[in-house]
Amino acid sequence: MSPASRPPRVAVVGSGVIGRSWTAVFARAGCATSVFDADERQLERALAWLREHSLSGSEHVRACSTLEQAVDGAAYVQECGPEQLPLKQSLFAELDRLAPGSAVLASSTSAFDMRDISEATRHSERCVVAHPVNPPHIIPVVEVLGTARTSPDTIARACELLSAVGQTPVVLKKHVQGFVLNRLQFALLREAVHLLKAGVADAESIDAVVRDGLGLRWALLGPFGVADTNKDDGVRAYIRGYESWITDLMDQLGPTPTFEPELTERIAEALDRARGDVSRAQVRAWRDRMVLEIRRLKAENPLGKAEEREP
Amino acid sequence: MSPASRPPRVAVVGSGVIGRSWTAVFARAGCATSVFDADERQLERALAWLREHSLSGSEHVRACSTLEQAVDGAAYVQECGPEQLPLKQSLFAELDRLAPGSAVLASSTSAFDMRDISEATRHSERCVVAHPVNPPHIIPVVEVLGTARTSPDTIARACELLSAVGQTPVVLKKHVQGFVLNRLQFALLREAVHLLKAGVADAESIDAVVRDGLGLRWALLGPFGVADTNKDDGVRAYIRGYESWITDLMDQLGPTPTFEPELTERIAEALDRARGDVSRAQVRAWRDRMVLEIRRLKAENPLGKAEEREP
Repeated sequence: MSPASRPPRVAVVGSGVIGRSWTAVFARAGCATSVFDADERQLERALAWLREHSLSGSEHVRACSTLEQAVDGAAYVQECGPEQLPLKQSLFAELDRLAPGSAVLASSTSAFDMRDISEATRHSERCVVAHPVNPPHIIPVVEVLGTARTSPDTIARACELLSAVGQTPVVLKKHVQGFVLNRLQFALLREAVHLLKAGVADAESIDAVVRDGLGLRWALLGPFGVADTNKDDGVRAYIRGYESWITDLMDQLGPTPTFEPELTERIAEALDRARGDVSRAQVRAWRDRMVLEIRRLKAENPLGKAEEREP
Repeated sequence: MSPASRPPRVAVVGSGVIGRSWTAVFARAGCATSVFDADERQLERALAWLREHSLSGSEHVRACSTLEQAVDGAAYVQECGPEQLPLKQSLFAELDRLAPGSAVLASSTSAFDMRDISEATRHSERCVVAHPVNPPHIIPVVEVLGTARTSPDTIARACELLSAVGQTPVVLKKHVQGFVLNRLQFALLREAVHLLKAGVADAESIDAVVRDGLGLRWALLGPFGVADTNKDDGVRAYIRGYESWITDLMDQLGPTPTFEPELTERIAEALDRARGDVSRAQVRAWRDRMVLEIRRLKAENPLGKAEEREP
C-alpha cells in the first residue's frame, strides 16, 4: 500500500496463537482486521489477549461469527487453521467461494504444499503460502510460496502487503518439506543433538556456543553473509581457501538422531536447570522483548557507508 | 581473578588478525599483555591497529622481540600462530620450555587436537585449546578443550581467566573435527547451499530467513533453548508432539555440496549485489559494532523474573 492509500481490509481465519499474533500484525499497521474462529471461546481468548497486551491497533479488530462476514470486502486473507490437510482444503474451498474475487488467500501452513491445499479451489491462482515464524508480531520473516498455478500478481500483492505491515516476506521458488526456515532450524538442531549424544559437550554448552557466538552474527547476517565477512577478500577467497576443510567437516556431521525418552529428559533437565526459578513464560517474554529491541537496533542502524572502521 | 587481585600477566604469541584481537581482549581487561611475533612487520601492524582503533588498555601492551621475553612472568599464554601442525608443535615445545612452570598454555587452533599439538611438551597437563570466534574482542565465546592429560586445574584456570577478561568460555568434553562451533556453522551452511543448489530459494532469500528470522532468536537462545520456548509446555512437549515431523525433515536435509566455481560465483555475485556500494570492510565494521550493541543490550537486560508478560 502506498503511503497515501488506505490500509487494505484483512481477514484472519483461526484465532489460536498464530492467528491472534497475525491479527496484531495487521491491526497495528492500521488494517481493518476481521477475525473468525469456529471456536467462539478461542476467539474470546484471542481478543482478551490482544486487549491484555495493549497491542496498538486493537480498535481495528472486529470479531466475526461467520467466515462469510470475516472475508467480506477483504483484500487479503491469512488462514491460520489447524495443521490438518483435509481441514485446510475445505477451508480454502470455502474461502475461495466466499472471499471477494480480488482477494489473496494465504495460508500460515508450515507443512503442506499449496498445490494440495488449493486442490478444491476454483481460483488457485490467488492461493499462496505465507508461513510466519511464531510469533509473527515479534519475528518479521514470512516465507511466501505459490504453486505453478499461483499468479505472479498474487505473489507480488502478498509481498507488498506483508512489507507494508512491517513483515519481511521472502519468496521461495519451489516447495520442499519444511520450506527454508525449518530445514535450516533442524539442520542446526540435528548437529546439536548429535554432539550432545556423542558426548562432545552438554546441552548448556552447545546453547552457549550459539547464543554467545554464532547467533550474534546470524542476527545480522545470514550464512552466506557470514561466509563473506569471514575473510578479508570475501566468500570467493573463503571457499577457495577452506573448501576441503569445509567439505570434510560437512561430511562428518552427524546423522538424524533418535530421540530416546532419556535423551529428551536430559535436554529438558539441562534447560530447567539453566532457567532456575525463572518460568518458561518469563523466558519467552524476555525473548520477545529482546527480539524487538534487536530489531529496533537494526532499524536505527542500517548497514550503510557510514561505517568508518572496525570497533 | 578476584576483584581485589591484580590482573594476571598474559602473553600473546602471534600478532595476526586473531592475535591482535586477543591482545585487545586481555589489555582492555587490565592484564599486562606481552605480544610476540617472529615477523616484526606484522607485530608493528598489530600495534598500529590497536592504536588506530583506540582500544582501551593499549598502555598495558608490550611488544616483545623474543618468545622468552614475551612469556616472562606470564600466568597464561594464548598461542595464535599459523594453522600448521608442525609449527604449533614446535611452538608449544618452546613455550613449555620457556614459560613459567605455573603458566597455562592455550592454543587458538580451530583445527588440531591438543594431543597432537602438545606431543613434544614435557608438561602437557597445562596445555589446552582456547578456540575463539573471530574476532574475539567482539564475540565472547571461547571453546575450551583439553586432552586426557590436561589437568582439571588447567581447565579451571583457563576458564577463570577467560571469564575475568569478559569472554564466555565453553568447556568441551571430547575432541571432534571442527569442535562444536564450526560443526554447527557448517551444518547451517551445508543446508543453505543445498537449498540454493536445489533451486528452492536464492542466496539473498536464504540469508534473510536467518537474519530476520532464526538469527533473532539464536542471538538470545541456543537450539535447545529455542526448542524449549517453541511450545508452551517446553522441550518435552515439543519433541513428543513433533518428533516424527522433526526426524522426517532431518532425514531430508541435503548432502555435502560440491562447490563448483559457478556456484561460488553465484553466491558471491548475490552478496556483491546485496552490498551495493557499501564495501565489505564497512559490512564487517557494521557487524562488529552491532554485535557489541546486542551484547550491551543483553548485559543490560539479563533474563530474570522481572518479565511479566509477552510484548
